[in-house]
Amino acid sequence: MTRTIDWTDGAVELIDQTQLPHHEVVLRIEEVPPLVDAISRLAVRGAPALGVAGAFGVVLAAQNHDPVSARADFDAAVASVRGARPTAVNLARGVDLALARVDDGVEAVLAAALELRDDEITASWSMSAYGADLVTELAGRPVRAMTICNTGGLAAVERGTALGVIQELHERGDLTEALPLETRPLLQGGRLSTWELARMGAPHRLVVDSAAPFLLSLGRADVVLVGADRIARDGTTANKIGTFSLALAARHAGVPFVVVAPESTVDPATGSGDEIEIEDRGPTEVVHVQGVAIAPPDTEAINPAFDLTAPELITAVVTDRRVVRFDRGESLASIPPGERRAPSRV
Amino acid sequence: MTRTIDWTDGAVELIDQTQLPHHEVVLRIEEVPPLVDAISRLAVRGAPALGVAGAFGVVLAAQNHDPVSARADFDAAVASVRGARPTAVNLARGVDLALARVDDGVEAVLAAALELRDDEITASWSMSAYGADLVTELAGRPVRAMTICNTGGLAAVERGTALGVIQELHERGDLTEALPLETRPLLQGGRLSTWELARMGAPHRLVVDSAAPFLLSLGRADVVLVGADRIARDGTTANKIGTFSLALAARHAGVPFVVVAPESTVDPATGSGDEIEIEDRGPTEVVHVQGVAIAPPDTEAINPAFDLTAPELITAVVTDRRVVRFDRGESLASIPPGERRAPSRV
Repeated sequence: MTRTIDWTDGAVELIDQTQLPHHEVVLRIEEVPPLVDAISRLAVRGAPALGVAGAFGVVLAAQNHDPVSARADFDAAVASVRGARPTAVNLARGVDLALARVDDGVEAVLAAALELRDDEITASWSMSAYGADLVTELAGRPVRAMTICNTGGLAAVERGTALGVIQELHERGDLTEALPLETRPLLQGGRLSTWELARMGAPHRLVVDSAAPFLLSLGRADVVLVGADRIARDGTTANKIGTFSLALAARHAGVPFVVVAPESTVDPATGSGDEIEIEDRGPTEVVHVQGVAIAPPDTEAINPAFDLTAPELITAVVTDRRVVRFDRGESLASIPPGERRAPSRV
Repeated sequence: MTRTIDWTDGAVELIDQTQLPHHEVVLRIEEVPPLVDAISRLAVRGAPALGVAGAFGVVLAAQNHDPVSARADFDAAVASVRGARPTAVNLARGVDLALARVDDGVEAVLAAALELRDDEITASWSMSAYGADLVTELAGRPVRAMTICNTGGLAAVERGTALGVIQELHERGDLTEALPLETRPLLQGGRLSTWELARMGAPHRLVVDSAAPFLLSLGRADVVLVGADRIARDGTTANKIGTFSLALAARHAGVPFVVVAPESTVDPATGSGDEIEIEDRGPTEVVHVQGVAIAPPDTEAINPAFDLTAPELITAVVTDRRVVRFDRGESLASIPPGERRAPSRV
């Protein structure tokens, strides 16, 4: 299995990310409840992957509960998928996309889900190609690329966003090494990005989050590539906590800082960072690491899940449909979305 | 016991820091080998505390091996103390200070060790007073103070450097809250500073290292206080990895950034940061947290133990003998060391 999540012989198959990097376990899921469980305990995570999981969930619901003769059961099953992670917009979007075809039968629902899967794959390949071209233009070749969190195939279906660009650079022979940040509190970089980089055979060295700004100041990376949770109209980017610190240090060191995210991440309803609420996820993740307490009991914490990076600190935003060079005065308004790039290879 | 390390009824007593914050264990040590073991496994750590441990080690050696009748055994014991952590300058300094009195008998050696202990305590109290006055001048009162690593009584004998200033502010009623960084890879902030802050009754919330720059940008702290491993003649400060990132973010946010360290940390033999070698401590600390693997086996890492902060990013340096305002154009050369401050209370 090379995809994080896929539809295989009438069932969902997905890599259980909670077991990575220590065990590579593929879950085969034929009913709705174990899929809901997998989503809620983060066995599958990442916005694009969650969208596909939601769509496949509707297929499973339709297979197990006839939407005509057992409508109440079907509806309840669909609702449980949608509610598996209440704040994940892509999950609900995937559910709705598949659900729209339910009157045409289960085959039509499956076709819609597979179309979403393929669409996410195409978007990732397009971002990878746009991004790798831009990195070569900005930083020359070969490059040492720093990145944060997990933005690879595990977060998408294949390839991913920022880590997808790194994979593309590696496949082109243009990557000297990747420098993933471990990404406390949940260690997606340490646990997942290292696993993906090893799997793709890309040279890499892990760094603790606080070392990255200093390594940039020493000239130890040529480019910083990050994903995005949301991009406001003015270009302010909400992303995993630690992104702002990287952007500030990249600017101080004169290193290009590039945001890579699907076009769907650009939110026309959000004007600027002031309109983005910073979620505090509570102390548990901070005072524990992988279940081990690292602070006295009852220690309080501030735990912002993500941070905001102003457009002034961003060199460029790369989506599956455009490259917007903030460093040249371009803006999201001045460069409209264009065509997706054909993948360099599939 | 309120001191990290002390001489009590003919033996060394020290808090076993490897067991913190989960267990508060005081080791009573009457012979040299268990002291060497305590030093080498970091049961006692921090430059001032290590100096005192070294001096007490010579006392134990003299008690157990007569320096006249059993000189070879005495010398071997002293050498084992000195070698317990080869790169800790303060350890060797403490050993030499006590050893210089050996011809005057064991009581004289003990007197020299106790004098070093008292000298470190006085230095900490003096720094605390100078630092707290400066913080109030720079940031008003009450303050929210951010800090990194452990620079409290556990690293000294009492009180400490940056965390000593925070304790002084708390005792004056001028501390709203402390914001310790967890300080990966070894988590001295998460494990030790939280424990000290709880013990002194100071309000505090733990943050992951990568969140601190963003919190500064949001105006969530009024001052950043850090210790130092070494300060060059030009003011460049080597300190725990993550310090540079904090300094950069503090400057960006307009928040005062203050270095607190004993006068002995100012190294006249080092002109600037270029002359300071950055030690890489290898991958083990990065790919494990408290013994738990967080990355695939054989993952490589870059692990700089400390970083360098240029004087341009430092508001002031506070020692036990002076306050040097870099923000006002003062330098270590222009402001010579003066008198220690009497402690505000003992």
